[in-house]
Amino acid sequence: MPVHLLIVYDDFGRNMTPLAQAIEEGASGVTGTTVQRRLVQDSTADDMLAADAVILGSPNFSGISGRLKSWLDSDPMEVLWEGQPMRGKVGAAFVAGRSRNAGQEFTLLALLHVLWGYGMLVVGVPWSDLMLASSSYYGAAASRQLQEEDLAQARLLGERVARVAQRLYGAGEARL
Amino acid sequence: MPVHLLIVYDDFGRNMTPLAQAIEEGASGVTGTTVQRRLVQDSTADDMLAADAVILGSPNFSGISGRLKSWLDSDPMEVLWEGQPMRGKVGAAFVAGRSRNAGQEFTLLALLHVLWGYGMLVVGVPWSDLMLASSSYYGAAASRQLQEEDLAQARLLGERVARVAQRLYGAGEARL
Amino acid sequence: MPVHLLIVYDDFGRNMTPLAQAIEEGASGVTGTTVQRRLVQDSTADDMLAADAVILGSPNFSGISGRLKSWLDSDPMEVLWEGQPMRGKVGAAFVAGRSRNAGQEFTLLALLHVLWGYGMLVVGVPWSDLMLASSSYYGAAASRQLQEEDLAQARLLGERVARVAQRLYGAGEARL
Amino acid sequence: MPVHLLIVYDDFGRNMTPLAQAIEEGASGVTGTTVQRRLVQDSTADDMLAADAVILGSPNFSGISGRLKSWLDSDPMEVLWEGQPMRGKVGAAFVAGRSRNAGQEFTLLALLHVLWGYGMLVVGVPWSDLMLASSSYYGAAASRQLQEEDLAQARLLGERVARVAQRLYGAGEARL
Repeated sequence: MPVHLLIVYDDFGRNMTPLAQAIEEGASGVTGTTVQRRLVQDSTADDMLAADAVILGSPNFSGISGRLKSWLDSDPMEVLWEGQPMRGKVGAAFVAGRSRNAGQEFTLLALLHVLWGYGMLVVGVPWSDLMLASSSYYGAAASRQLQEEDLAQARLLGERVARVAQRLYGAGEARL
Repeated sequence: MPVHLLIVYDDFGRNMTPLAQAIEEGASGVTGTTVQRRLVQDSTADDMLAADAVILGSPNFSGISGRLKSWLDSDPMEVLWEGQPMRGKVGAAFVAGRSRNAGQEFTLLALLHVLWGYGMLVVGVPWSDLMLASSSYYGAAASRQLQEEDLAQARLLGERVARVAQRLYGAGEARL
Repeated sequence: MPVHLLIVYDDFGRNMTPLAQAIEEGASGVTGTTVQRRLVQDSTADDMLAADAVILGSPNFSGISGRLKSWLDSDPMEVLWEGQPMRGKVGAAFVAGRSRNAGQEFTLLALLHVLWGYGMLVVGVPWSDLMLASSSYYGAAASRQLQEEDLAQARLLGERVARVAQRLYGAGEARL
Repeated sequence: MPVHLLIVYDDFGRNMTPLAQAIEEGASGVTGTTVQRRLVQDSTADDMLAADAVILGSPNFSGISGRLKSWLDSDPMEVLWEGQPMRGKVGAAFVAGRSRNAGQEFTLLALLHVLWGYGMLVVGVPWSDLMLASSSYYGAAASRQLQEEDLAQARLLGERVARVAQRLYGAGEARL
């Protein structure tokens, strides 16, 4: 039984889509995983309900972008709170910004905060030497010029989320 | 020369307006302070530019509400980044939520993050025994049932922001 | 093959131990789980290495207590960074403080930050009506007077971490 | 009447002292400011009490270093809570780490959290193009190789804290 992973993001700026594609690539490489990549304006509560894992992406707007946050707060999304249907799903986050140390971490934390509110299990990227050049253990990140290391971390994040979701739900087990 | 304090907030729920009114009351009691209290849908970039101090309020939506964040991110507000016209102004934050320890602090931090992004100076509420029942040193807060201690902390926050703004800019000094 | 869960905490104040005991109780109820509850001064890197899941607890000292943080930063614990032996283990956090909205959330985030740094998978408590009276989706929490709801959330956190660890590693699977 | 600024920091790693020196340099350039730069192991509660402004610095240890946090939590420092003698003083923070987007922001937030707990007024660095290469609006930061932009931001932070402290307390005014 395939595990389904959803990537939802606000594509403001030039780095969000390449990061999302790298996450998709990483997740797609895990056998038994289907991946859907969606811009926030094309995403629905049903997409969220259908997924076993969700990776949220926001550009750094001193936190989550108003566009993404308004979607998360919108009326059709309220169903994700009632009865906690997202509970136990796997979640992760990614971010892109212009600057260094000026909100990327905070935006990732803000995205993870939303996933926790849903009762999801949060996955990041373990420390490696890639982190000397690129992203956070909170998720994938890019600053200004996209670097090869940023894409490598994004692929790793996608792969890792897919592996965790497989392990938890690949045999059709009940939600945790 | 009077110092001008702006309170901008999203009034979702029943506790945001009472908190905002208490902040207004506290600030108005400081001689030489004019206070404007505005719902976010009625606020403009010009209101922000005209203020010496700004207190932002959001209901706890696992962070800043989409309505307030979208306003902060909107095109007319971009002028607040260019040339950093908010630099050196005094800022603070308030929040109301249903639960305890489930996002109030994080929402306050998210609001303060925006104020820092503008280059503002951030003011909170010093520790006192009121904090055993009510709000954070990050700002004013209410959970579920509004308590008298919540209003007391909100008045104190308003008064404190007004006093700091007076000391910094009451004689018409240049922005820091 | 039993899954092993470690609870490590700084027992400053009167509420940390009751919370830790409730977490232990919740985890112990999950078949096939062994639970070890340890004060930080009695804990070693080997305890961490032997565990499939770790729940860290700190009193609210405007963040993690110096006692717990110094242990985490101490030389014998460096082995937890090299080679990332904690990677893929399950983690969670708990906190107790005197006040409301004055650092409990932040202390939980600070503890989770350490777990992420280790590459662990982070588990919280899903939203429920218990949260109107008690703790955060980030973990278990108590403010001042310990409430029955705080203990219920702590038991739930322990149970949930044990269930996730069972699902991931109960059959002796490789670390994720 | 001179304003007195204290820099207290944990000098782990090679970048903390250069950042602290740059902050000292920036602050010393503001007429009427005396600056004291101290390693945490040589600092006392009396140093804190004597200062009008305090800039705390920590290496990124997935948050504040245990060494600095243990000092902040130590018995002799408790006097800083009782009666809130630090209330209204000016505060800021700096950090150095090896990686990018992997705890620098969080460590700055953790330091600011402590300053807020004391009731201090928090100052950061306004946005500028320097931030494309270097540090956060939360404070000064360096990642791995120290860059000239990091030192420029650190000098700016020192200067800004000194200017705010001068404006607030340079004529011997009462604490806010």
